[in-house]
Amino acid sequence: MPGSIITLTTDFGLSDHFVGVMKGVILGIHPAARIVDITHDVGAFEITEGAFVIAEASRWFPRGTVHVVVVDPGVGTARRPILAEAAGQFFLAPDNGVLSMLLAREKHKVRAVTDDRLFLKPVSSTFHGRDIFAPVAAQLVKGLAPARCGKIIRDYLRLDFHQPVRTGRRFWTGAVLKIDGFGNLITNFHIDEFPAIASRPLQLAIGTRRLTQLAATFAEGPAGEPVLVVGSSGYLEVAVNQGSAARLLGVGVGAPAELTVY
Amino acid sequence: MPGSIITLTTDFGLSDHFVGVMKGVILGIHPAARIVDITHDVGAFEITEGAFVIAEASRWFPRGTVHVVVVDPGVGTARRPILAEAAGQFFLAPDNGVLSMLLAREKHKVRAVTDDRLFLKPVSSTFHGRDIFAPVAAQLVKGLAPARCGKIIRDYLRLDFHQPVRTGRRFWTGAVLKIDGFGNLITNFHIDEFPAIASRPLQLAIGTRRLTQLAATFAEGPAGEPVLVVGSSGYLEVAVNQGSAARLLGVGVGAPAELTVY
Amino acid sequence: MPGSIITLTTDFGLSDHFVGVMKGVILGIHPAARIVDITHDVGAFEITEGAFVIAEASRWFPRGTVHVVVVDPGVGTARRPILAEAAGQFFLAPDNGVLSMLLAREKHKVRAVTDDRLFLKPVSSTFHGRDIFAPVAAQLVKGLAPARCGKIIRDYLRLDFHQPVRTGRRFWTGAVLKIDGFGNLITNFHIDEFPAIASRPLQLAIGTRRLTQLAATFAEGPAGEPVLVVGSSGYLEVAVNQGSAARLLGVGVGAPAELTVY
Repeated sequence: MPGSIITLTTDFGLSDHFVGVMKGVILGIHPAARIVDITHDVGAFEITEGAFVIAEASRWFPRGTVHVVVVDPGVGTARRPILAEAAGQFFLAPDNGVLSMLLAREKHKVRAVTDDRLFLKPVSSTFHGRDIFAPVAAQLVKGLAPARCGKIIRDYLRLDFHQPVRTGRRFWTGAVLKIDGFGNLITNFHIDEFPAIASRPLQLAIGTRRLTQLAATFAEGPAGEPVLVVGSSGYLEVAVNQGSAARLLGVGVGAPAELTVY
Repeated sequence: MPGSIITLTTDFGLSDHFVGVMKGVILGIHPAARIVDITHDVGAFEITEGAFVIAEASRWFPRGTVHVVVVDPGVGTARRPILAEAAGQFFLAPDNGVLSMLLAREKHKVRAVTDDRLFLKPVSSTFHGRDIFAPVAAQLVKGLAPARCGKIIRDYLRLDFHQPVRTGRRFWTGAVLKIDGFGNLITNFHIDEFPAIASRPLQLAIGTRRLTQLAATFAEGPAGEPVLVVGSSGYLEVAVNQGSAARLLGVGVGAPAELTVY
Repeated sequence: MPGSIITLTTDFGLSDHFVGVMKGVILGIHPAARIVDITHDVGAFEITEGAFVIAEASRWFPRGTVHVVVVDPGVGTARRPILAEAAGQFFLAPDNGVLSMLLAREKHKVRAVTDDRLFLKPVSSTFHGRDIFAPVAAQLVKGLAPARCGKIIRDYLRLDFHQPVRTGRRFWTGAVLKIDGFGNLITNFHIDEFPAIASRPLQLAIGTRRLTQLAATFAEGPAGEPVLVVGSSGYLEVAVNQGSAARLLGVGVGAPAELTVY
């Protein structure tokens, strides 16, 4: 039963029939599948945002879950579908780097999904979510052995946008990974890699601001003023009590953030 | 188990409690129902968009699925609820033409849903999704014989907005059926009815543009330029590589599109 | 089986991984849980809107349902999580008044949720939906006795924003409780408390308008003109036939509405 969960993460939005169609395909193959939406509002074609979302969300699902990630600017072009096994779970995605954050963290095995007997035919050139990813996911939760999908590969695409770069003894240059729905800016400085965040004076320079106040909760700072918080995913975030940090600071995904630890 | 699927397509949006309420009613009657959202973002009162969405989405669901479509500008007025049987599936909707595209394609039988013992009482004048469609759908997946809903009728409303009109030996006037979340313009020229699309030179005049380049994938065209694509539903679409055709061309649902096949 | 339903009502939106994460936590603890989204688009930090949504939606779910409400401007601060039992159902929420409308209507028992053995550890300061509410809900549908959560309390927060105030023999001052997705203004005058609405001449003064026409359905009024309707929840609403009353009248949640019954 835990092994019957399929999650969906896409940039399809919810205003079309696309997500519903993927669910129809899955349930047609395996009626007992339990389908959970992570989000379908990944910015269109934003591989880095998709990479963050699946890396964070998947931690909380049981072993055996099959995660489908379709954020795919290159749909229909030559890039392969891949199946990664990591942390006892399965990840189906295009080979475009969208699993980079996850694979950087977990021991893993990656296969190219090449057995087209698993696909819906004819495979369209524009909707691989329906024709490739949904049917393969359904067959995996139904019991298909991962090895049946295709051979193990080592040349899958890995991106390192999520790794801060050390630029001095006390300096690191990082970036905004994601802006959440509350307008919080999630940076790529993680408490596990930068434990000093919690114990030492620090400064984060972002946009035109230099922030030094680390708060325990979003509700702590003075209303309207940005504060630093270690968010629920363990990353350093910029938040504004009952307001939007993204709007206040005027920065977006990818904006640089310079950390100094004293 | 396949027979326990209910899909929902509405113009209710997701910011209210309406969709959740329909699900509560369904699960209260038949706890084993498996409910799938197609979309709740059909443009408010847009019957043509709803007609397209259910015709395309339902193809991918297994036999026995009950589809509920509530796009209903006339809620509370005299129009009847109907139950259509087509392609081994069931469709509950108001009799306002929203099943037109589906019924034009499939052999079908349509009943007026008149047995008000199946409804929640008192039936409100403004929320038939809760009081009529949800409880009837739940009872159908629970095993109610369709004939118990009411008699077969032939005078249900059929609209033909989805049929291009021939205007010359090589000319057809069609229209934009839907704009998807990527901004692609989906026209009503289907590859099955216009197989020449794939094999002969053609021109699509839409907005102020005359398009002649048929691409295999969204990613093929030069960035920022509109191309023609046969989309995943088989309809001719106008797409812009990593951009929005709707914004670039400045046209909306219902806009005319003139096809010339040479 | 009916007892395995968990509903979610939050202000998290659907563009992040937060809702998916809560579902992962629930399914990890109780794979048979049936999770239903009420809405995740409660206005950020809008306790009154959340209070309305859960009071209306929960009526339609079967006994034994566990409702989780996370609309929580004070996350991480001192306010307690509470568990209310009412109408044979269970409600998990922060103790910030978000259950006020429900508890004003139903006989109930409220507990402080204090047994932190039920929580995910470490409990973050910013995501109690994941660390407290989801795991407790999952354990309740799995069979945990409510008394195991904590002791019965009487000093939980009750707000009375939803109660109109009598200001004269024939006058009451109420307010807009919620604006629904169609732009209808839902006031806090309920037909059960003001049965005269349906039987006597009345006037509702709201914004700069004085409305006196009570229509049976949204479709009844002249196009573009506001009318009064008793909505599907039993509250007096201002609606515009195929238009938005909120936009036409230019009023928002909390706006005063003065009722005169003649």
